[in-house]
Amino acid sequence: MSHKKRSRLRVGRYSAPGTRPGTLTTDPDAPPSEIQVIAYGPERLDELEVSDPAELRPLLGQAPVLWVNVHGVGHAESLQAVGDVFQLHPLALEDISNVHQRAKVEPYSEYLFAIARMPTGDPPNTEQISIILGRGFVLTFQEGQGDHFDPVRERIRLGGARMRNGGPDYLAYAVLDAVVDSYFPVLDRIGNHLETLEEEVLADPSPDTAARIHSIRRTLLGLRKVVGPHRDAVNALLRGGSDLITSQTELFLRDVYDHAVRITELAEAYRELSSDLMSIYLSVVSNRMNEVMKVLTIIASIFIPLSFIAGLYGMNFDPDASRWNMPELGWTVGYPFALLIMLLVAGGFLWFMWRKGWLS
Amino acid sequence: MSHKKRSRLRVGRYSAPGTRPGTLTTDPDAPPSEIQVIAYGPERLDELEVSDPAELRPLLGQAPVLWVNVHGVGHAESLQAVGDVFQLHPLALEDISNVHQRAKVEPYSEYLFAIARMPTGDPPNTEQISIILGRGFVLTFQEGQGDHFDPVRERIRLGGARMRNGGPDYLAYAVLDAVVDSYFPVLDRIGNHLETLEEEVLADPSPDTAARIHSIRRTLLGLRKVVGPHRDAVNALLRGGSDLITSQTELFLRDVYDHAVRITELAEAYRELSSDLMSIYLSVVSNRMNEVMKVLTIIASIFIPLSFIAGLYGMNFDPDASRWNMPELGWTVGYPFALLIMLLVAGGFLWFMWRKGWLS
Amino acid sequence: MSHKKRSRLRVGRYSAPGTRPGTLTTDPDAPPSEIQVIAYGPERLDELEVSDPAELRPLLGQAPVLWVNVHGVGHAESLQAVGDVFQLHPLALEDISNVHQRAKVEPYSEYLFAIARMPTGDPPNTEQISIILGRGFVLTFQEGQGDHFDPVRERIRLGGARMRNGGPDYLAYAVLDAVVDSYFPVLDRIGNHLETLEEEVLADPSPDTAARIHSIRRTLLGLRKVVGPHRDAVNALLRGGSDLITSQTELFLRDVYDHAVRITELAEAYRELSSDLMSIYLSVVSNRMNEVMKVLTIIASIFIPLSFIAGLYGMNFDPDASRWNMPELGWTVGYPFALLIMLLVAGGFLWFMWRKGWLS
Amino acid sequence: MSHKKRSRLRVGRYSAPGTRPGTLTTDPDAPPSEIQVIAYGPERLDELEVSDPAELRPLLGQAPVLWVNVHGVGHAESLQAVGDVFQLHPLALEDISNVHQRAKVEPYSEYLFAIARMPTGDPPNTEQISIILGRGFVLTFQEGQGDHFDPVRERIRLGGARMRNGGPDYLAYAVLDAVVDSYFPVLDRIGNHLETLEEEVLADPSPDTAARIHSIRRTLLGLRKVVGPHRDAVNALLRGGSDLITSQTELFLRDVYDHAVRITELAEAYRELSSDLMSIYLSVVSNRMNEVMKVLTIIASIFIPLSFIAGLYGMNFDPDASRWNMPELGWTVGYPFALLIMLLVAGGFLWFMWRKGWLS
Amino acid sequence: MSHKKRSRLRVGRYSAPGTRPGTLTTDPDAPPSEIQVIAYGPERLDELEVSDPAELRPLLGQAPVLWVNVHGVGHAESLQAVGDVFQLHPLALEDISNVHQRAKVEPYSEYLFAIARMPTGDPPNTEQISIILGRGFVLTFQEGQGDHFDPVRERIRLGGARMRNGGPDYLAYAVLDAVVDSYFPVLDRIGNHLETLEEEVLADPSPDTAARIHSIRRTLLGLRKVVGPHRDAVNALLRGGSDLITSQTELFLRDVYDHAVRITELAEAYRELSSDLMSIYLSVVSNRMNEVMKVLTIIASIFIPLSFIAGLYGMNFDPDASRWNMPELGWTVGYPFALLIMLLVAGGFLWFMWRKGWLS
Repeated sequence: MSHKKRSRLRVGRYSAPGTRPGTLTTDPDAPPSEIQVIAYGPERLDELEVSDPAELRPLLGQAPVLWVNVHGVGHAESLQAVGDVFQLHPLALEDISNVHQRAKVEPYSEYLFAIARMPTGDPPNTEQISIILGRGFVLTFQEGQGDHFDPVRERIRLGGARMRNGGPDYLAYAVLDAVVDSYFPVLDRIGNHLETLEEEVLADPSPDTAARIHSIRRTLLGLRKVVGPHRDAVNALLRGGSDLITSQTELFLRDVYDHAVRITELAEAYRELSSDLMSIYLSVVSNRMNEVMKVLTIIASIFIPLSFIAGLYGMNFDPDASRWNMPELGWTVGYPFALLIMLLVAGGFLWFMWRKGWLS
Repeated sequence: MSHKKRSRLRVGRYSAPGTRPGTLTTDPDAPPSEIQVIAYGPERLDELEVSDPAELRPLLGQAPVLWVNVHGVGHAESLQAVGDVFQLHPLALEDISNVHQRAKVEPYSEYLFAIARMPTGDPPNTEQISIILGRGFVLTFQEGQGDHFDPVRERIRLGGARMRNGGPDYLAYAVLDAVVDSYFPVLDRIGNHLETLEEEVLADPSPDTAARIHSIRRTLLGLRKVVGPHRDAVNALLRGGSDLITSQTELFLRDVYDHAVRITELAEAYRELSSDLMSIYLSVVSNRMNEVMKVLTIIASIFIPLSFIAGLYGMNFDPDASRWNMPELGWTVGYPFALLIMLLVAGGFLWFMWRKGWLS
Repeated sequence: MSHKKRSRLRVGRYSAPGTRPGTLTTDPDAPPSEIQVIAYGPERLDELEVSDPAELRPLLGQAPVLWVNVHGVGHAESLQAVGDVFQLHPLALEDISNVHQRAKVEPYSEYLFAIARMPTGDPPNTEQISIILGRGFVLTFQEGQGDHFDPVRERIRLGGARMRNGGPDYLAYAVLDAVVDSYFPVLDRIGNHLETLEEEVLADPSPDTAARIHSIRRTLLGLRKVVGPHRDAVNALLRGGSDLITSQTELFLRDVYDHAVRITELAEAYRELSSDLMSIYLSVVSNRMNEVMKVLTIIASIFIPLSFIAGLYGMNFDPDASRWNMPELGWTVGYPFALLIMLLVAGGFLWFMWRKGWLS
Repeated sequence: MSHKKRSRLRVGRYSAPGTRPGTLTTDPDAPPSEIQVIAYGPERLDELEVSDPAELRPLLGQAPVLWVNVHGVGHAESLQAVGDVFQLHPLALEDISNVHQRAKVEPYSEYLFAIARMPTGDPPNTEQISIILGRGFVLTFQEGQGDHFDPVRERIRLGGARMRNGGPDYLAYAVLDAVVDSYFPVLDRIGNHLETLEEEVLADPSPDTAARIHSIRRTLLGLRKVVGPHRDAVNALLRGGSDLITSQTELFLRDVYDHAVRITELAEAYRELSSDLMSIYLSVVSNRMNEVMKVLTIIASIFIPLSFIAGLYGMNFDPDASRWNMPELGWTVGYPFALLIMLLVAGGFLWFMWRKGWLS
Repeated sequence: MSHKKRSRLRVGRYSAPGTRPGTLTTDPDAPPSEIQVIAYGPERLDELEVSDPAELRPLLGQAPVLWVNVHGVGHAESLQAVGDVFQLHPLALEDISNVHQRAKVEPYSEYLFAIARMPTGDPPNTEQISIILGRGFVLTFQEGQGDHFDPVRERIRLGGARMRNGGPDYLAYAVLDAVVDSYFPVLDRIGNHLETLEEEVLADPSPDTAARIHSIRRTLLGLRKVVGPHRDAVNALLRGGSDLITSQTELFLRDVYDHAVRITELAEAYRELSSDLMSIYLSVVSNRMNEVMKVLTIIASIFIPLSFIAGLYGMNFDPDASRWNMPELGWTVGYPFALLIMLLVAGGFLWFMWRKGWLS
């Protein structure tokens, strides 16, 4: 994970203030959404691709569970058409199309509307997953860069009893579980990265280290902002008491809640750890500076006085002009005497600094 | 956004302590308020400008929705006259005229009174928007520097079904939504600015950088103080259970609540990011200092001892006076010998510093 | 506001642990309390000064509202006598006399007991205001350094309808409102001071600046400790559901609550701002140090090597003793050659430092 | 308060994990507990010392209030015997004997069990006070280093009406009040110490100052940990609705609660203040360093170039060998010229540094 | 505790996102779990080892309390077989096998499921303990590195009345109590270590000290993350109102809750203390730097000017060329005069620095 690439921490796309609510945030260049349908029950399993949302209408109520996965939310007509079939509220459609929502759960009279965010890429950005849980059907909407639900589909195909008998609420749980659990590898990667940084900070920090710690803090800031609402959303689902969710499935949702809590706590703990790394980094830098200063001080303190003495006897006062003028220059032991004084001065300073503990 | 212009973080205008409540905070020089009226329903739409508030009385109850927008709240008579027509409580009038209130929602027996704050300018200050939602009418009051409701008016004129059928509560929602959403561009600008600062801090921080980070922190401090209450106010509206708000509109208010939460979280996240920027800035400054010190130490450590040696042989002890006095001066290889010693000393220090890793 | 004078942040007077509750904290030198009485109703207004609290007894129940303002709470007999007339609980009396209470509201069976704190002086200390709201009367107790209720009295005298018709609860509100609102000028002064400090920190911080920031932080620490409880107290009054407070007055108390919230938030925001100022101050100091170091490094790095070269050719090796000994001294261009070398060295260092960006 | 002596912040004595609950933490060398009994009512007062806990049994129910104060909780047999007489739960006995509990209130079916902590010594440690409030009796247990209840006993002996008529709940209140109030002098001492430190930090901080600030922070950390639970415990008592506590006494407990809140807030505010002191200390140290650096830079910047010039004209190039070799040496005004250059250089640097504001 | 070994703060093992819930996290190399059974009641005690979980079935309901302790949770068949006998929910089995859960309590219809974490090793990691409390039986699952329940077993064997009569809820309490209490020695070790570090920081901090403080902070970060949920879990047990827990045992659980609170508070307090240590460490480092700088400044400030003077009179201007050229060289007292000037300069600087307080 390079610290050059930075995860976004920006306001997402927003409609101009004062825009009519229910306005779809669409992209004129977006292709029509791809729609995958799986209709299943304990005994049956039908998979098909649908090009026109209107084809979904006859499928309603045919199988115990109808799962409609809409891939790509930028195409206004597709979205509107799906909304018409399942009678979705314009606000729900708006939230589906504006892919910068926080995770949340909102009860509408005929269905539950949930938004979750799936982490993708490295450094992690997130993609919005919208889930509509209605009577007999589950609608999922993905932003469109890659499909994230293959493991869930595989489980349906394998025909495990719990999945096939589970009803739409169990399917919604399975999708939500897949989303929440996909934060674990992301956090694992960050944890890994933090441990590498920790080694680096303690052993050999470079100026780049601070930038890397900052980069990871920024990622965690974004992640925490995204992850926290999942916990609240799942909790709202658990406490909501909607009759769309059986007590059976509630047990499973409790498990998702546990995972959301663990993720939030990890992100929090990693952020604290990165704070500690920053402060240890600063202390290491400060210690190094101290060491550099000590070397400078030792050398300068010893040689500056010595240079002065040498300079003293380099003065050109005329010994012939008076007997007061630098008689040492003519002494028999003048030079050794000067060297001795220098030795004493150097020794004195060394002793002083040794006593201060600067020489260790 | 220059850091010279700073947003205000001051106590607003306040009445002298002990003043009679309901005292209007007015400005003797203020012109009479401009009053725009839109009366509409599914089938009709009347727009007019009113100069005397008393003209509003006959309009009451004529159309399904009567929207009276009062522009400028500094003119006591205008305000009082409007208050008389709609029987507003003196405290509500006081809050409308004293434009330094926090966002809030207060239920009165016959109407709901809401205050929101509209961001304007750059760096952002805020203007107070007061909203009265009564039976059949909506009153809005703007401070007066510019009109912020044109997009809403446009939607009424366009005659969208939801707007025209929506009742006064829907209109109040539309106004509130326009206010809350206008924080998105403000935060987007700040986010932009933070990203520029981030580049600058990591690449080439100047002393001015700290001042700019501080300036943005100050703006965010002010913004958070203003933004937070909106969330609480909308929540109070949602939980309040007033019969003035239909369950229909409640769904839309939930959307406003979501936006208010997102804004608050963004302001919070930006403030944390700016904290990180400040600490990374300090670490960069500290690193630079370290580098400067290292260069000084390297140069001083090498040349100070060399200068001492040069000074030593610059002493004027008389070699003729005794054979102990600087015999080196007369050696055949005295000068090369001195140069060699200097080379060895310099080499030794370079090796020492290379081993310390200071030369990289 | 000098930073020499510091507001108190100390434990107030406290009775020795184990003392009988209801013990009055009195001052033997205190003069008897002054007692001002205003008895009023829509139609009447009587003002008198009372020297003996017993004179209050016949006044009970005579007028719709009886306001007894006790000035000075250090005189035990006065206080006890007032307590006897209005049948106050010993604990209430103790709290009134021990003037270091937090703001609070306590319901007693026959009356409501409120404590608020009035800011006085600069840097602000606070004085305790005790308010007893009973049936038909309001008792207020002031510590005694100055009277704070003149604006309220003036409003009674002016005979505004709301005041005269308002009942004792409205009077208690008016007093509370006067107390809470008197924090606005205090905070305004602090905000002013902070803005001056901000200019100073960004433009030209002196070591004294840190002390001044600290002084303001200390004041805010004390203020926040004092201000916060007011919000809780007024909230308790609003939620308490006492029949002593009419729903009419409740609307007004909601206004006081709003002001208490604003004050608390301002104190909080100012404290955050002062934190930012401290950190910007440290960064400015650090930057200055950096600049000083850079100048030192530039000068030392250039001249120390030059001095060495000069020292080199100042050595006294005897050119006559051998042709190896400093032949440069006898060269025709020896001196220009030495100057050239010096120029090259100086230029090299300048180039190196220019490349490092230290010369800008 | 020396910073050498540090208050404990350690895990207290703990039983080995897996030990049977109700195991008494006893000390084999502990002497039998001393037991003081006061039986009193409005009309009577009996005091006696009891050596064998069994002697307590006949006293039960004889007087309106029976106060048994057990001094020393390390002697297992004494404790067990007292527990048998008053039918205490083994867990209560365990908590009484393990003197490292947090303050708490626990309702048992027949009595209320409260633990409080009494501050002793300087720096303050705390001693555990256990209180059992039953029907007609109050049991208090002290760790044993000194007796803390003399003021309460004195009030019983003095026979004040409220004390004598008060019932066991009033006695329990009086004891709790004595404990909570004894934090005031402790905090007062700390506040005093902080003010001294504040003077010192602002005037003349020594390296020792940081250690002293740390010491006080540590004490406050411990104190806050101890003090906080008292508030919660008294609150639990107030909200508990036990029939052992009359509404009369509840008013008094509310007073204890107020004091507990004040204590907690003071400890919190002092801790914040000490944080501020630490940061101001660091800023002062940093400023001093700056000043030292400035002096060094000024002197070095001026004299290093001067020395270079002096060195330049100390070179021994032979003016006789060529007219390019140091002709200045033979100039008539060579020396004054050199001095002039030096003066100009020194003046230039002084002007540069004066402009930078380093000379002030 | 070396700071080289670091406790883990990483995401634990996690199933791939989208995996079927109830998937056991198993280890193909794991040996079958060891199963120890103790069936006891007031009158009886049977201990046996079981190799095939199916053998457990006939033991159900035979004795008042059946304690089945499963050692090692990595063997899928063993776990599944135990689950079949006691009809455990697949999610419970999944949580038991995935040993990276937070402490929690979950009510299932027929049993209570609790997870706790037992600290082991130094620096402390934790092992997961899963507890199932059903009607007449308690199931405990340990990760498998060492058995932690011997003290509990011993208490059963010793036959204390409370243990033998206590029912399965009392047994579950005893196990939980053993787990929670085992944090005390861990925290005691950390507290010890912190006190050593505190001595070191105040007396003689080395660069290694910061790394050691960081290491302890990291351990505390991990510990707090693990410890906190225990408090919530035990609280959930207390508030849950399950009929599987008698009011008798509730009193004991309250005791466990108290301990969990104390542990959490200690971890929190230790973390705060370590923050303080870090900041005191930085202040000590900063002070040392100051001292080093002061010595450098004193020496350089004194000798650099002296050297300049010496250099001045080392210049070779020809006194014979002009009477302006260094006439001092020929003065009778030229040399003593130069020495005097040097003395005055040195003395002046010493006086200046003494006045600044740098010489102390």
